[in-house]
Amino acid sequence: MACVLCGDLPTKFWENEHFSIIDASDNNFPCFVRVIAKRHVAEMSLLTQEERTMLWSILNIVEKTMLIELHPDKINYAQFGNMVPHLHWHVIARWKDDTHFPECPWGSKLREVSQEWYVNRQTRMKSFKSALSKALDEANV
Amino acid sequence: MACVLCGDLPTKFWENEHFSIIDASDNNFPCFVRVIAKRHVAEMSLLTQEERTMLWSILNIVEKTMLIELHPDKINYAQFGNMVPHLHWHVIARWKDDTHFPECPWGSKLREVSQEWYVNRQTRMKSFKSALSKALDEANV
Repeated sequence: MACVLCGDLPTKFWENEHFSIIDASDNNFPCFVRVIAKRHVAEMSLLTQEERTMLWSILNIVEKTMLIELHPDKINYAQFGNMVPHLHWHVIARWKDDTHFPECPWGSKLREVSQEWYVNRQTRMKSFKSALSKALDEANV
Repeated sequence: MACVLCGDLPTKFWENEHFSIIDASDNNFPCFVRVIAKRHVAEMSLLTQEERTMLWSILNIVEKTMLIELHPDKINYAQFGNMVPHLHWHVIARWKDDTHFPECPWGSKLREVSQEWYVNRQTRMKSFKSALSKALDEANV
């Protein structure tokens, strides 16, 4: 079966030579991005040192821009790849009153959120994506 | 309430000036470590650039040593801190026939493993911890 992360990434909003970033927001997490390697490798250690350093720089800018633009209570990171062994990092802005907090995004859903809560974060996510693209381009990563 | 990661870390097996590593293995995941910042900060961006670079170097050596010593099918990383907002990274060696694969460690348990399977990994974990301490000391991180 073809790797889904080797194909088109419909919600991609930024890319450079080695990495793409997609909007991975879903019904529970309105501010969720995925940073995806362009090469089909499963593990961090299969990147070159240059690629790995670039990836950490990207993740650092993602986090800083999330904190500035989204005002979350916590940033969550994960890299599993058990289902799709093509290197990708989940970065998720979390709030104390979101659907799962303090559970991780793969834990139990603990509550519902209001439509207003969700739409408010969706609006912030739009500004965040513009700000992130600009910050990454300016940092020339 | 005092932060549990600011106190003694009973299963610590390595440390340097800025980070500690503990054996975080549990009944489902026999090869699981946690890399913990010594300073009580919640987010990666609250580390200094020097500390962050050091942390990535440590995580890279953890992964490489896991691959060499443990022969897992996949390495899983996570940094949440929703319950304990003191920076710590989970790094977990995964096998296709472990209790949760391909679910993440915070997902659903899918099967039981034999005592033999578990003890085999516990044995590898002992060698891994020695090899990791040696590799980190040699890399002088």
